[in-house]
Amino acid sequence: MPNRTVYFVSDGTGITAETFGNSILAQFPGKPRHVRRPFIDTLDKAHQVVREINQTAELEGVRPVVFLTLVDPDMLGVLKASKGMVLDMFNTFIEPLEAEFGVKSNHRIGRFADVSKSQEYTDRIEAINFSLAHDDGQSAKNLEQADVILVGVSRSGKTPTSLYLAMQHGIKAANYPLIPEDFERNELPKSLAPHKAKCFGLTIAPERLSEIRNERRPNSQYANLENCRREVAQAEQMMRREGISWLSSTHKSIEEIATTILRDIRPDRLMY
Amino acid sequence: MPNRTVYFVSDGTGITAETFGNSILAQFPGKPRHVRRPFIDTLDKAHQVVREINQTAELEGVRPVVFLTLVDPDMLGVLKASKGMVLDMFNTFIEPLEAEFGVKSNHRIGRFADVSKSQEYTDRIEAINFSLAHDDGQSAKNLEQADVILVGVSRSGKTPTSLYLAMQHGIKAANYPLIPEDFERNELPKSLAPHKAKCFGLTIAPERLSEIRNERRPNSQYANLENCRREVAQAEQMMRREGISWLSSTHKSIEEIATTILRDIRPDRLMY
Repeated sequence: MPNRTVYFVSDGTGITAETFGNSILAQFPGKPRHVRRPFIDTLDKAHQVVREINQTAELEGVRPVVFLTLVDPDMLGVLKASKGMVLDMFNTFIEPLEAEFGVKSNHRIGRFADVSKSQEYTDRIEAINFSLAHDDGQSAKNLEQADVILVGVSRSGKTPTSLYLAMQHGIKAANYPLIPEDFERNELPKSLAPHKAKCFGLTIAPERLSEIRNERRPNSQYANLENCRREVAQAEQMMRREGISWLSSTHKSIEEIATTILRDIRPDRLMY
Repeated sequence: MPNRTVYFVSDGTGITAETFGNSILAQFPGKPRHVRRPFIDTLDKAHQVVREINQTAELEGVRPVVFLTLVDPDMLGVLKASKGMVLDMFNTFIEPLEAEFGVKSNHRIGRFADVSKSQEYTDRIEAINFSLAHDDGQSAKNLEQADVILVGVSRSGKTPTSLYLAMQHGIKAANYPLIPEDFERNELPKSLAPHKAKCFGLTIAPERLSEIRNERRPNSQYANLENCRREVAQAEQMMRREGISWLSSTHKSIEEIATTILRDIRPDRLMY
């Protein structure tokens, strides 16, 4: 796709259009230019985006691809008359679903009507606060309220995964580092003992761990490859002995790690 | 949609399928049961999900809706033979794009091939670490590296927005509380002065602020409605005087706030 521009046009944030559009574009070679145009919620703004799309078409000599999540039929009409290749992500699926459900869709704009009245949204914010307060073993208070407790050596990916679980899924995710003192005592941190069933381990390839730690503290004992090897081996041994499920974060994104954790220890959160 | 079950079946995390499917289902009244089935990447697993879908169809007497993001044609075939109403989110758009681009898609499974080799992913993780280290004015170090600095009174939504900007967009977002001492001195915190151009303000309705603060510290001066009114008025006055753009977080989700911030002060991050 040389010189191709892709637009993501939405009456909301356009995040859904862009995320989904990207996973489709990933099926093709090359990297097109991205333009996200959020909050297109008046006819004026729709016409303005169309002008931009048409200019791009002229400039690049090839029609831009336009991923569209617009609810209003009039605005949809305006965009469809542009010189772009319009992929209407909403109506493509809404029409067959209207037939299936035997009801008309309500053409409501935006996913988040009024977040201050949404329990689900309030739970997400509360989970973020919980995860922040319980990052890196900062607090053993209220651990009984945690949905998940991540354990692993320093820099194995616990913090970003905890925050992602909270932000995306409203999961109260605490995390606890496994440190050399724990390996010497040869047992899990005391405060975790009553909560072993909701512990999940992250491990990481020692070579990758050493790289990551070296960025933080170059040439330290902490980042030393032999030391990383020893810590990782001891952590894995401890998790195996304690019967804690774990996975390697080395080649996995936080999205993949979080989904695996939910599937394995909170399957209820994938069915609701 | 009474008693209707919706499946989100994917060879990856299924997060894209579920997010997008939800925004479509939000156009209809009622709330169906959700089942996400991630990592369906073998024919065996595909058959297993089909059995589950067929059981649901029988049990509920109505066919489940199945949002599908599967790349492999054989697995796709297995799912399409189920008793569900299959909405094939990938191929619906991939086929017209293959025609448009004049190339075949590569049928690559998963959005995140190997994150340890992806600069974009590394940048996201680095941004999360930056935002955590610069939460709540903790550190004025390296503020020149920040892409955005959020300011506002305590509990106006700065922390979740900063983390979201980092996690979703790889934006290094610091945040600084505006506190009564700043209002007394009648100026922005000193360390922000050189970085005013990248500051963005969050404000909030005093009634909502008082509610949120009351959950933290019930019946405190901090949560008192009159006090919240005064702090919010002073913060808005200061931002107006300093020429800092701001918006109210009262009825907005972190997704909406983050997108507005990017549009207004980092439009380059919506075009890349």
